[in-house]
This record gives sequence, C-alpha cells and structure tokens, in this order.
Amino acid sequence: MKTEIITIGTEILLGEIVNTNAQYLAEQCANVGLDVYFQTVVGDNKTRFIHALEIAAQRAKVIVCTGGLGPTDDDLTKESLAEYLDEALEYDDAAKTKIEHFFTNRNVFMPPNNLKQALRISGDEACSLANDNGLAIGCAIHKNGCYFILLPGPPREMKLMFQSYAVPWILQKATGLQRLESKMLCFAGIGESSVAEMLHDLIKNQTDPSIATYAKEGEVLVRIASKNVNQIAPIEAQIKQRLTEYLYAEQERTLEQVLIERCLEKKIRIAVAESCTGGLLSQLITSVPGSSAVLHSAVVAYTNEAKQDLLNITRSLLEGEHAPGAISEQTATQMAENMLKQCGVDYTVAVTGVAGPGESEGKPVGLVYIAVAGNGKSTEVYEYRTGGTRSIVQIRAAKYALFKLCQKI
Amino acid sequence: MKTEIITIGTEILLGEIVNTNAQYLAEQCANVGLDVYFQTVVGDNKTRFIHALEIAAQRAKVIVCTGGLGPTDDDLTKESLAEYLDEALEYDDAAKTKIEHFFTNRNVFMPPNNLKQALRISGDEACSLANDNGLAIGCAIHKNGCYFILLPGPPREMKLMFQSYAVPWILQKATGLQRLESKMLCFAGIGESSVAEMLHDLIKNQTDPSIATYAKEGEVLVRIASKNVNQIAPIEAQIKQRLTEYLYAEQERTLEQVLIERCLEKKIRIAVAESCTGGLLSQLITSVPGSSAVLHSAVVAYTNEAKQDLLNITRSLLEGEHAPGAISEQTATQMAENMLKQCGVDYTVAVTGVAGPGESEGKPVGLVYIAVAGNGKSTEVYEYRTGGTRSIVQIRAAKYALFKLCQKI
Repeated sequence: MKTEIITIGTEILLGEIVNTNAQYLAEQCANVGLDVYFQTVVGDNKTRFIHALEIAAQRAKVIVCTGGLGPTDDDLTKESLAEYLDEALEYDDAAKTKIEHFFTNRNVFMPPNNLKQALRISGDEACSLANDNGLAIGCAIHKNGCYFILLPGPPREMKLMFQSYAVPWILQKATGLQRLESKMLCFAGIGESSVAEMLHDLIKNQTDPSIATYAKEGEVLVRIASKNVNQIAPIEAQIKQRLTEYLYAEQERTLEQVLIERCLEKKIRIAVAESCTGGLLSQLITSVPGSSAVLHSAVVAYTNEAKQDLLNITRSLLEGEHAPGAISEQTATQMAENMLKQCGVDYTVAVTGVAGPGESEGKPVGLVYIAVAGNGKSTEVYEYRTGGTRSIVQIRAAKYALFKLCQKI
Repeated sequence: MKTEIITIGTEILLGEIVNTNAQYLAEQCANVGLDVYFQTVVGDNKTRFIHALEIAAQRAKVIVCTGGLGPTDDDLTKESLAEYLDEALEYDDAAKTKIEHFFTNRNVFMPPNNLKQALRISGDEACSLANDNGLAIGCAIHKNGCYFILLPGPPREMKLMFQSYAVPWILQKATGLQRLESKMLCFAGIGESSVAEMLHDLIKNQTDPSIATYAKEGEVLVRIASKNVNQIAPIEAQIKQRLTEYLYAEQERTLEQVLIERCLEKKIRIAVAESCTGGLLSQLITSVPGSSAVLHSAVVAYTNEAKQDLLNITRSLLEGEHAPGAISEQTATQMAENMLKQCGVDYTVAVTGVAGPGESEGKPVGLVYIAVAGNGKSTEVYEYRTGGTRSIVQIRAAKYALFKLCQKI
C-alpha cells in the first residue's frame, strides 16, 4: 500500500535538526506492509502543508504526518488537515481533562493555547490517537480513499503513539496489511561483508522470510522477517549454525549490554586496561546502567611511561632494539595480568594497538592485541587486524575486546 | 530565492539511513540566500524522480538534488534530469580520463559502467561540477527558468562539490544572491537558555547581523551572520563582553580540540582521574589526533575500592558516618592531587559525581565535583550541578571538566 511521510517543521526544513522521525517511520512502515514511495518536508505553514497534502493524496493511499501538534501558533497541522478535508475540529474530552490536570497538579497557570493539543478532527471514520508520553494527541482519519495519520514531532511521543495506536488503527482499517514478525541475531568478530558472503545462498534464494544484514561498527545484526512466524525458525537455525562462533545475542543488544547482563547474573566483577582505545572501552561499559556493580576500574595507559607507572609493565618489554614493544602480545598479556593483581576482580581485559593516524613502533594502523585474564585460567591473547580511521579502529578494537571478554563469561 | 532539496536514494526512502545530506544542504543554502521551502525524498526510480522534478519546478526556482550519480544501474539521476529537460548526456573528457587513470593506476579491470560517472548534461547553460573527493561528477544547468544542481550522495563528496563548485555557479548565474559572512563564538559552563537570555535584547532587536544559538551538550555556539562583513564586529564585541567568562573559542571547535591545541602549543602534559564519567573524559581527549603527546594516562576509579587501590584516596574520606564521601570536594581534590603525584605531569583533572540513575550517598543525580591540580598552584575545586539522563550528566560533567582545565592552560 503506497505511503507518503510528511514531516512538518521549520527547524527540519531549514536544517537546524536532522529528520530522524522520517527515518524511523519509513523503517517501521515497512514492518506493517506500508510501502513508502515519497517523503516530504514542509515548514510550519498552512498553505504549503495543504499543497503537500494535495500532492500526497494523488500518489499515496496512506499519509503519515509528524510534527506541528503542539500548543503554539506555529503548530498548524490539525487545522490544516481539517481544512483540507473540510472537517471540523472538536475537543477530545479525556485529552482536555489530562491537560487541565497537568497544570492544576503543578499549580501553574495554563496558557489557554494549551487546549489546542486536545483537539481532534471530526468525521465518520476519524479517531484520536492518545499520547502516553505527552499532552498533544494525534488523529487518524479515513476520507476520500486515503488514510491520514497525524503524529507529534518529539520522537519519544511520536514513536509510542505510532506503535500503540496508529499501527493498530491502520491494520484494522485497511485490508491486506499484516505485521511482520522478526527475529534479530547479533554477531561480532566478523565484518558485514563476510556475514553476507556466508549467508549468500540463503539471502539470494530466500524471499520469505527476508534476511537483511545491518552493520554497526564492530557488530553485525541479521534480521529474519516474515508475515508468517513459522517461516522464521528453520532459517534462524541455519544461520546460527553457520555463524555460531560469532553469535553474541539473539535479540537486539550491544556487546556492552550483554557483558553487563551476564556479569550481573553471575556476580562477576571486571577491570579494564586500555591503551589505543583511550577510554572508549570503559566508556562503553559504564554507559550501561548497572555497570557500577560490575566494573571496578579502568586504567588508560596511553603512553609507555604510563604503562610502567600505572600498570607496572616491564621496561624491557617496551624499550630496546629487540623489545616486543607496547603493541605486542606480551604487553597485552602483562597489562591484563597486572591489572588483575592490582584490582582483585574476576576478569580483566587489556587492549593495545595502533589507532593511527600513522603507524607506531613500525607497526601498521589497525593492528591490535587483546588479552583476557582471570578466573584462575591462563591468559588468552588475540591478534586483531582491522582498518579505517582513528575513531573506527578505536571502536572496532573496543568492541572486539568486549566480544572476547563476553565469550569467557 | 525559493529552493527545493530532492534526495534520491532507496536506502534513505526506506529509512535504512538518516538523511543528513538534506540537513546539511538546507543549512548551507540559507548561507547563500537560497530559501528552502520543501524537501523531498524519492527512491532510485526514474518515473518517480521525474514526477518530483515536475512538482519542484512549479514551486521552486532552485532545485538541489543529491544522490544517484554512481556507476550502478540504480544510479539514474543524470539520465532522468536529461530526459526531463530534453537534453542529451555527453562525456566530460577530464572526468573520463580521471576514472580511467584511477583503474589503470591500481592495475584493476574497469567495469565499463564506471564511465557513466563522467557523464554530464549538455545544454547552453550547463556545466560539470568536479568531484575532488571521488569519481562521479555533478552537473549544473539553467533551463526553463530553473536552476538545477546535481550532487553525489556520499557526504564527503557532496559537501566539497557543493561548496567549491555549486555555490560559486549559482552565485554567478542568479542575481540577488549573496554569501553570508559569519563568525562563530563557543561558550561552555553555561546553558543555551541562559546564553539566549543574556543576549535577549541583541537577538530580538537585531536583524542584521542575525544572531543564532546552537546547543551541543556542554557547549553553546553563537553564530553572528550578515551579508555585510562590517556588521559583524560590533555585535561580536558586545557578545564577547557579556559572556567573557564562558568563552572558549572564536571559531567552531570542541573543548577537547581546544585543550589539545593549547597543550601542544605550550608543551603541557596532562592526566585524568575520573569516576562518574566512566572513561568518557579520556575518550573525548584521545579522540583528538595528537593527544598521545599530551595525555599521559587516565584512571577510571569507578568504585570506592578502586579509588583506594588505584588513586590512594584516604579511606576515612570515603567511608564512615561523617565522611564527606566519594562525591565531595575533598575526594575530587585528592583524586587530582594523587594522580599528579603518580604521573608527574603538568596538570591533572578529576571528576566525581552522580550520573544516575538514582542518587548516590544521598546526593542527587547531576551533582558533580571537578578538581584541577598542577603547575605548583593550589588545587582548585568546582561544584557543578546539572540535570538529565545518565548519559547527559556524563557528557556535561566531562565537558565542564575540559572547560575548567582549558581555563588554566
């Protein structure tokens, strides 16, 4: 079913903010069988929004609008669509009461413009869409052969309203639409192109379920989707079998989330010694709420001097003509082991490598050594080679270290 | 001059990637007097792109297109515009030679489709736009009263081509356009709303130059812009005078860039002791190339135990009924001073606070202490109170620490 997304907002039109709402809606529309053919952006201007509606109604059957439902004079979306469809606006009593309570509960005077947010378009096949994260309600209306959906601009409000109310409305109203079921598998330690190659025959021959890969730096997600949930499991089993050594999660999760979940579950405490990642590894770990019960500490020993001062790395490892150097298996191993001694935790992970720009110790950009020590086992060290700019090498090295640590836990 | 931006690309239409190109172009168009009235997104589809061109030509005088100039069968932008304008395509000889050399220099077979990238639209008022960051050239053509500009999709290529060739072309062709001159001032330690309040009268009464504020977490940018460069200096002087204690740069720069630049210039070395920022502070510093000559090391002492083990913080400061606790001026001071002793650098900065979720030691989320030690001066410590989610508190605290350190250097 042909669909158009219209974003209303001068701040997006003029490039003050990026249009992430259109991206989200485009992606989510596909999940319910709505095929997006066009996206349009207009400013907070009634004439130009109505012009965009006229064009959209000629080329699409479903028109999803976001933005312009707020209390200010600039917020014109409902008024404009009502005028275009020749319908009246009326108050949604529940929404009106909610707004009034919002202000009385806070003992704050309510500027009367706020009640605009409780307006909805009237009509035989029209309804309100509740806003569980805010005050401005949305609307949905079927008229002149088109389905119109109005959503608020703030992403938190827009996303929840779309999923909770707009999708159920369109699935009930329009025939032939069906929600896609999907399963996400997460892999690390392998690039997106290698995943695609290993699944080449499946991806090529398969139309139901569909298989798509998504790459984040250091993480590859594979999504298996079908309207028929029973189609998913057999393909899922095949993919897991082929890529088993790289699998780290069976739902959408970052490596740091999986690490913290596993450590919390098993009451494991960790510490980190990093060099080329410069704090990124500990920053990723501490970005997960609950990490304070897991991460004891991190040392960012960015220079050779710091490796000696803070991690007690043997000088002869770092300096001298035949020394292995800071970027070596030996230094990674000592970093992990000495950090373990200092901190008395269950596991430590260490990263040392060349993030660039430019080589170091005659070693190439992208060469990284990762060591995992702990739990009375012998320390394991991994050589990892990657490419890219400084920040890409840093993120890939940090993600690979998280992956190797996850595998032990 | 009314302008429309058309983005061509199925990956954007379907929401696989965010349309940052449209945001960039919208912002940059304003700088040369091109008023964006609509933005449109279409897939890699000739019929629908031509449909979008027909609509755009009715409502805009300048049409800026991005995407679809590459070598594959999906790349249809030039062919489509040529068909729409009833013009032929012809090779740009210089671009063709460049592509051929690209492959012969690498000793790689050139798939013939690659030469498509050297095509341009012919016509009396048409020209190529060179691609200094890639192989696919762009085109510009004035016909039927409209100015059409075709740019590639990859942002690096698109931005350079737009600034170097498209803008000069439109400024020369169209009358009444003029490039805006602008000056950026960067502030920290103050929120955007406070900046706006302190400049309220200037922003309100001023139309030339225009004054706009842009907020990043922990940094507020003020842009003064005018077609007449002489208008800028008097307002700039007033703004600097009012906000002098918060100013950290007079061109667009992050705090970490300014810190590294100043330290390199003055040959200053630093080290970092962080708690609630969890590695973010050192990650920001090490994201700047050249930081390895500046940053000795960082310790992320995330737990009280780690503060004792790695930073020698006095136990009685941290524990006990009347102890000031980990989140205190005293602990911040000791963290900075002990790090200084351990590392022998010129300056250290320490951060301890409550990032949330939830309070800590009975202290509220957003309470942060920052200490700067070094250079033989007495340690200075600052209390900073902010709000927001865990990640927002972390970034604001890290940026405030960078700001306080910058002020010493």
